[in-house]
Amino acid sequence: MPRVFMDVTLEIGQTITIGGEDGHHYTRVLRVREGEFLAVASSGCGYLAHIGAVDATAGIVTAHVVETLPTHESMYPVYLIQGLAKGDKIDTIIQHNTELGVAGFLLLETQRSVVKLDSKKRESKLERWRKIAREAASQAQRDVVPIVAYGSAIQAVHDWLDSMSNVSVFFLDEEERTVGLASALPLHSAQVVKRTSVLVVGPEGGWDAVERDVWVNQMRAIPVTLGPRTLRTETAGLVGVSAVLHHYRQLGG
Amino acid sequence: MPRVFMDVTLEIGQTITIGGEDGHHYTRVLRVREGEFLAVASSGCGYLAHIGAVDATAGIVTAHVVETLPTHESMYPVYLIQGLAKGDKIDTIIQHNTELGVAGFLLLETQRSVVKLDSKKRESKLERWRKIAREAASQAQRDVVPIVAYGSAIQAVHDWLDSMSNVSVFFLDEEERTVGLASALPLHSAQVVKRTSVLVVGPEGGWDAVERDVWVNQMRAIPVTLGPRTLRTETAGLVGVSAVLHHYRQLGG
Repeated sequence: MPRVFMDVTLEIGQTITIGGEDGHHYTRVLRVREGEFLAVASSGCGYLAHIGAVDATAGIVTAHVVETLPTHESMYPVYLIQGLAKGDKIDTIIQHNTELGVAGFLLLETQRSVVKLDSKKRESKLERWRKIAREAASQAQRDVVPIVAYGSAIQAVHDWLDSMSNVSVFFLDEEERTVGLASALPLHSAQVVKRTSVLVVGPEGGWDAVERDVWVNQMRAIPVTLGPRTLRTETAGLVGVSAVLHHYRQLGG
Repeated sequence: MPRVFMDVTLEIGQTITIGGEDGHHYTRVLRVREGEFLAVASSGCGYLAHIGAVDATAGIVTAHVVETLPTHESMYPVYLIQGLAKGDKIDTIIQHNTELGVAGFLLLETQRSVVKLDSKKRESKLERWRKIAREAASQAQRDVVPIVAYGSAIQAVHDWLDSMSNVSVFFLDEEERTVGLASALPLHSAQVVKRTSVLVVGPEGGWDAVERDVWVNQMRAIPVTLGPRTLRTETAGLVGVSAVLHHYRQLGG
């Protein structure tokens, strides 16, 4: 059963009311019943709630928060900066990487992005992508819905990266022949300070020379290869994030 | 530029003729020219070939094999056994995992597979999936096209697994809470004998209790989790294969 994301802070013993779209979904589509349990998430934490009443006509579920659930989030956050790609590729990228556990997405207009979105289209696309992230997070039993943001230039990323400590930025680079994530990731041990990883994936046509220079020299991103097989833009991020999460023992122990 | 797969054994100095669908693609779609280079692959090895003549009308490219290319294949083969899933999910699974480097696929009818294919449909589906694998392998610059096979019962896998030495079978198991690939994979060092990994992924509805028992007790598969986030069937394989290839340093060094 998918999780409900609540916008209020929860505590044990609290009574919650699920209405709106979620209420409709749980009463009319999933047809939950009084006495059953459902999982809710709020402020990065999952809770088990016991259903006290179901009003299918009004589409409202009333439940009591009974216990906190173990975290489902990676202890080592991974962000994906993805060059804007064609068609519905971004939809799939957000859906799959949200399931996998990405903490947030930055969709970036690049020199070779065929797609450029004006501010109106951008808003409607962002709304769509955030909905996809929320649904995928709910299905995947996550504690948070990943952030989805849009950037129209690499420089916009600079301040955000600068504001973070203990962050490694990996630039997936077709020109890099040797260094992979296996050697670029810091050695992992339980004693090490929790690090954040940012993976940077280009659009279909890759990055131009100026952009590459900005990533490597201004943003201090580490160029890495994912090996000799050419991955498409919609596969590369998922593969890279899987490798990082595996490295940090966040895909099971 | 995508690679051409040749069915004949190649050697340096040999003249090759590319006709048929490939010839059409290279002359009319990609519009290669005399003097350019293209990559060809045969018997698990990649070669660079120098184009001597292009006949666009007949759709024929003539080229000379000039050198062997470094291997693009994983030194540690990974096979994917995938429970038959609905819609075009298998298409995507084959495409993405071929890019990533999977050595072969076994599509398996399971108790909870909604799709069951009669022998006629099976042949046409297999033809379609093999075409997808070939195209993805060509785009990804692989040295081989992965094998695509179909099984109508788990027991059919038994002899195949038994015929292989140094093989680890990992059963992606929703019921497993603790052991992930990180601890289930054998310790990796350059001295270790090359191992083959087989990942077993269920269909949308998962495996039933009898099937689970067959995998774990008869096939000696190791149950593993990919962590607390619920992955869909089309994501799980790609994530698991990425973790295995990363573990064996086959996604860049």
